Amino acid sequence: MFKMNFSKKLIMAAATTAVLATPAMAADDKVYKLKLAETWPTNFPVFGDATKNMAALAEKMSNGRLKITIDSKNKHKAPLGVFDMVRSGQYDMGHSASYYWKGKVPNTLYFTTMPFGMTAPEQYGWFYYGGGQELMDEVYGKFNLMSFPGGNTGNQMGGWFQKEINSLDDLKGLKMRIPGFAGEVLAKLGAKPTNIPAGELYTALERRTIDALEWVGPSLDLRMGFHKIAPYYYTGWHEPATELQFLINKKKFERLPADLQQILKTAMRTAAYDMYIQSYHASAENWASMKTEFPDIQVKSFPNEVIDAMRKANDELLAEKAAADPLAKKILDSQAEYLKKARAWTDISDRAYLNSLSK
Amino acid sequence: MFKMNFSKKLIMAAATTAVLATPAMAADDKVYKLKLAETWPTNFPVFGDATKNMAALAEKMSNGRLKITIDSKNKHKAPLGVFDMVRSGQYDMGHSASYYWKGKVPNTLYFTTMPFGMTAPEQYGWFYYGGGQELMDEVYGKFNLMSFPGGNTGNQMGGWFQKEINSLDDLKGLKMRIPGFAGEVLAKLGAKPTNIPAGELYTALERRTIDALEWVGPSLDLRMGFHKIAPYYYTGWHEPATELQFLINKKKFERLPADLQQILKTAMRTAAYDMYIQSYHASAENWASMKTEFPDIQVKSFPNEVIDAMRKANDELLAEKAAADPLAKKILDSQAEYLKKARAWTDISDRAYLNSLSK
Repeated sequence: MFKMNFSKKLIMAAATTAVLATPAMAADDKVYKLKLAETWPTNFPVFGDATKNMAALAEKMSNGRLKITIDSKNKHKAPLGVFDMVRSGQYDMGHSASYYWKGKVPNTLYFTTMPFGMTAPEQYGWFYYGGGQELMDEVYGKFNLMSFPGGNTGNQMGGWFQKEINSLDDLKGLKMRIPGFAGEVLAKLGAKPTNIPAGELYTALERRTIDALEWVGPSLDLRMGFHKIAPYYYTGWHEPATELQFLINKKKFERLPADLQQILKTAMRTAAYDMYIQSYHASAENWASMKTEFPDIQVKSFPNEVIDAMRKANDELLAEKAAADPLAKKILDSQAEYLKKARAWTDISDRAYLNSLSK
Repeated sequence: MFKMNFSKKLIMAAATTAVLATPAMAADDKVYKLKLAETWPTNFPVFGDATKNMAALAEKMSNGRLKITIDSKNKHKAPLGVFDMVRSGQYDMGHSASYYWKGKVPNTLYFTTMPFGMTAPEQYGWFYYGGGQELMDEVYGKFNLMSFPGGNTGNQMGGWFQKEINSLDDLKGLKMRIPGFAGEVLAKLGAKPTNIPAGELYTALERRTIDALEWVGPSLDLRMGFHKIAPYYYTGWHEPATELQFLINKKKFERLPADLQQILKTAMRTAAYDMYIQSYHASAENWASMKTEFPDIQVKSFPNEVIDAMRKANDELLAEKAAADPLAKKILDSQAEYLKKARAWTDISDRAYLNSLSK
């Protein structure tokens, strides 16, 4: 406990009150309307709450001068078109995830989460105090876009498995729904990553069309029902701190008066942090529900042999990316350096604390 | 990875632009001036940045209509008088820590951090989604005060020790600077908690007037220099998520127009989150510096026997408080229930992840 020494001198501080003083700068009374396209369906839990929270904060703080309407994918029909729609100005803002654009702009991959990468507080440290935001600006600035952290899911689970993974051999031929970069890592080890539409996942896992799948974690897995049909829930390795993103068309942003720019930036920043905490809360609640209803769910971690091989495959894939593109190298080096320092601290703080209480 | 299915339909979303529309509500152009008293000295790192960050955000977002001036303890001379000065209206706002008021209002103890309690994301979950803020409102509302989270230090270290703690016997007679409730816990186990002014701590530890001390963690310990004179740095148990507080005089707050109320609340919330991340960053950076300069620092965790005895002593002290006061019981029950759920999630997410990478 840090404690200030209590000076016993009489309190002589000047009295003060909330008083009316000189008139403020002439305010711009115009109403600015912005339209936001989100990648998610209407009323999607947690992710969709982040956009609603942000828009409500902006409207209240601006006394109605900043009105943001939100179109879900049900309306705009282009969940993975958000980058292009904001870039072109068809929408002023977007809410999505940076790694969805890696096929279009490879260096967007690094601003969501990385296998074996930083946890949420580590990654927020990198974004806000360790140069991450500046690197994201560099990647997105070329496209007339601004990108900001848009809410964190927290550590994602490794997924639901029908059979135990006890060795590297158990990965060979494993049919798993695991999209994106993590799928590439597993493919290097002989697994067969597949992509299956969300609506068909439950049946595919139940009928053993696939052996395993990953989705998010208890916050969003509960409603999918996978815990009813798969006995093993593996702890995470591939998305330790999935950060969504707010996208803004730069020209549209620059047309806003300075106070509304600051209101918008602060509303996004608060909504992002809030989503991290809401995700934590929802995962805690939903995990308790799952365990109550299905007490036999077995939580497993991959054995060292598997973790080591996945790390090696991951390192190799990243080395290829760094070798091919100087900006990719710059970003990856920045992340690796930050992770090293931040993890040394995490290990002697939260990890040591949590371990000391679970012996 | 959660991934939306990509509909290939042509993008038909309505075009939109940032346009000028109908005039907004008549804005209140008056300038509101608030004075804030902080417990810290002028330009105190991290803690003091939280108040400056909050005030700057409020001023920018309000286009200068909300001006908050900050008096440090060097000015008001009453670091532990903040509660009274804000309650009386001498100051409109304060920045301090709730547990400083436990001698005056015992139930304020529970809104900073508790030994063996929640980590920062767990505790923010409790504050914002688990009923913690409402309980804090109940405690502070009786005093014409509003209290909000004011920034988290992250997990605090157990402190600097001149000798190793290998058993409960090593605590007997241990002279340690550890104020507050954690000191009471240690006293039950035979240690001799002492309080020594900050400016004398270094010399006291160097000359072995005391055997050990705790301060905060690398973020603020580095400048104190304890790492130069004590070989052992113990991991934390007593302050897993120290949350500072913003205090506001309720009547003063209610005089603000609705938009400025929201701006102030959002500025405080963002500054609190930011301080958590800044603390994380500063601890990571400073721990790296300490280790580079003094590679022989030994990080230790207390043995199970000691942890178990401290937990038991802590539980007994809390049971006494719960038995003596129904509101204390309500708060402690709420925290215990939330901790149980949240920790079950932390254990299978961040803890499992971190452990899998440090084998």
